[in-house]
Amino acid sequence: MGTEFLKIKECEEAIDIIQKLFDENLKPQSEEIDVGEAYGRILYGDVYSRMDFPPFDKALKDGFAVLSKDSFGASEESPNTLDVIDFLEAGATTDKKVEEGKCIEISTGAAMPEGADAVLMVEYAEKMDDKVNLLTTVTPSQDVARKGSDIEEGNLILKKGDFLNPGKIGVLLSQGFETIEVYKKPSVGIVSSGNEITLQGEELEYGKIYDVNGGMIKNDAISCGADAKFLGVMRDDYDEVKQKITDSLKDVDILFCSGGTSAGLGDVLKHVLDELGEVHIHGISVQPGKPTIVGVIDEKIVIGLPGNPVSALMIFNAFVAEPLTKLAGIEKDFELETVKGKITKRIHSQVGRMQYQLVKVDGDKIQPIFKDSGAIFSLSTADGYVKIPKLVELVDEGEDVEVYLFN
Amino acid sequence: MGTEFLKIKECEEAIDIIQKLFDENLKPQSEEIDVGEAYGRILYGDVYSRMDFPPFDKALKDGFAVLSKDSFGASEESPNTLDVIDFLEAGATTDKKVEEGKCIEISTGAAMPEGADAVLMVEYAEKMDDKVNLLTTVTPSQDVARKGSDIEEGNLILKKGDFLNPGKIGVLLSQGFETIEVYKKPSVGIVSSGNEITLQGEELEYGKIYDVNGGMIKNDAISCGADAKFLGVMRDDYDEVKQKITDSLKDVDILFCSGGTSAGLGDVLKHVLDELGEVHIHGISVQPGKPTIVGVIDEKIVIGLPGNPVSALMIFNAFVAEPLTKLAGIEKDFELETVKGKITKRIHSQVGRMQYQLVKVDGDKIQPIFKDSGAIFSLSTADGYVKIPKLVELVDEGEDVEVYLFN
Repeated sequence: MGTEFLKIKECEEAIDIIQKLFDENLKPQSEEIDVGEAYGRILYGDVYSRMDFPPFDKALKDGFAVLSKDSFGASEESPNTLDVIDFLEAGATTDKKVEEGKCIEISTGAAMPEGADAVLMVEYAEKMDDKVNLLTTVTPSQDVARKGSDIEEGNLILKKGDFLNPGKIGVLLSQGFETIEVYKKPSVGIVSSGNEITLQGEELEYGKIYDVNGGMIKNDAISCGADAKFLGVMRDDYDEVKQKITDSLKDVDILFCSGGTSAGLGDVLKHVLDELGEVHIHGISVQPGKPTIVGVIDEKIVIGLPGNPVSALMIFNAFVAEPLTKLAGIEKDFELETVKGKITKRIHSQVGRMQYQLVKVDGDKIQPIFKDSGAIFSLSTADGYVKIPKLVELVDEGEDVEVYLFN
Repeated sequence: MGTEFLKIKECEEAIDIIQKLFDENLKPQSEEIDVGEAYGRILYGDVYSRMDFPPFDKALKDGFAVLSKDSFGASEESPNTLDVIDFLEAGATTDKKVEEGKCIEISTGAAMPEGADAVLMVEYAEKMDDKVNLLTTVTPSQDVARKGSDIEEGNLILKKGDFLNPGKIGVLLSQGFETIEVYKKPSVGIVSSGNEITLQGEELEYGKIYDVNGGMIKNDAISCGADAKFLGVMRDDYDEVKQKITDSLKDVDILFCSGGTSAGLGDVLKHVLDELGEVHIHGISVQPGKPTIVGVIDEKIVIGLPGNPVSALMIFNAFVAEPLTKLAGIEKDFELETVKGKITKRIHSQVGRMQYQLVKVDGDKIQPIFKDSGAIFSLSTADGYVKIPKLVELVDEGEDVEVYLFN
């Protein structure tokens, strides 16, 4: 009992321990995915250009690829006349060469023919069969994008940690990348426990309730960038819990177990974790959510959440969302994911432990949602929660508070 | 030419026309999906509770289900003693009934047995075999959540348009919903065109470039909540364009065509749209992105984007992102998706049409990215764009600007 008591942690301490357990046991991993499917994924490494872009001297306008000096002196009153020896569409090539007195008609995007050093826009030319009158002068390189002028081969184009938005995906595509290495989504599983738990689609017998935490925590993990799956329901029985955890950890790196009752699972889970690995946190000094348990088995993390869905959601958000999001490679400043406002009703809090108060945000009005912690319907309207430090007994109406927002 | 000219639109006009074409031709649709897979989806209709919650009178604490009056007068000094006639775990039921002088031991979450009206917490009880000493009094309903106290059957619990976050998913699961009706993702296709376009994975011949817009616009549509797919490359040939559009519109409701060149596709697309349907916009008075074309064929929308990726991305974001996002059921105030700051370098703009200037945001410093519009690598760092109205010639260093952010 003496040493056990040491595993009850204050909030800040628990946050640090969980982050440390993530850092020590779970290294970010990568996977190769199609660039066309990459929206919202995070680059795992720096990306360098594979080739010059444009890959050739490119016409920027529709017109005539000329030797610029052939245009010198030309004007509307006194045009210079050249032979048009070919026509180049974008994507086409020619073996003809532009020499003095000659030019090639060219479309935007086409590769400049050999010899030519400028494009004279079609608006300043008068074409007649296989001749053209140049009505103005052009300087060398005019309306030509030089090979490599946008980017040269071997340059850093995107950075590790970059969020792949459509523009960055475009950059990768322009360099011919078919696939790209991104952070692998952390592999998360959720098991619900409790004899009263019934799955949706089954008939609800008297005294039983539908499972909430399985699907809810799965979706919360997904919102943090994880690949999460619900792994079913187990009874609060030592052998069954041990077997289910052992089996689940073959599939996933992070396993959430959520008890149907506040008491039932906690004790069993504690003993299973003690046998198979090590318990690092057994209780957090927070209301609600005290029975939270965190352990490590073979470099995989097992987290026992409170059975009450409102408590489970707050504990997940307060303690696990940040390390999980980091593991997914997503740079997100959780301190910035808050809104400030004034509380609309007095909140009483028990001195001696941190309290999380569910709230609804309405502009700068922060409305506490007072319901007993089993009241799942408070989640219909809750936007997040306010933290009331352990030595604060009262937050008075009108006081400034900071709301930690749910995903 | 006279009537054609009328189809060149000012920016604000084009935004209104495109929104109207979406509203008139594309009605939001719904689909039924698994609640467990619903993160980030949008509710298509109001949702009402199917049953009372809790579905039975529920014990909120571990302890003893008693008749409250059996506890009256009890204290530590003078406990009342009751017979313990059964034990109820969560999920279990009993046919035994609590009567005067009797009680049933009960776990948190279990259904209250018949007769009992309160739970006396285990901390205030002394159990001895099949007897228990009550050390305190309880009042009727103490530590009992009444059937329906959280929500009664038939109440509005979630609203049409609600974003399904983990908490709201929890609410649905608690009511036993296996599936739920959400907005169907708008069906979008993208075709690239141009003889110079090469797909990633193929060898790049001289004079050709990799397709960017197919994958980039696909991912931009996905970021707006659409189900988008790349439908391949077509040549800028009348019959091929006509066939490809006809085939594509069997699959998708909104089709983007993006020309490899600024000129090539526009004219062909215009004629195909004229034949198969109606052209509503042929040119927008904006730099870059003038050759944009919008038409309707059999209540489906076809949009021709500029071939240049930077232009295509800006046109997509400025004109299509908002109606597409609305069609997906997502309520997003695009006016709020902006950041304000001071421009770090003078921008010159051509008077007579709106100019979109690509920028990078660095705190409140807004850095214009000056590159010719073919410079795809500006998208490595661009965060959005600034709109310079058509009568403004110059935005001076230090002036306040508003940045429209990319997804």
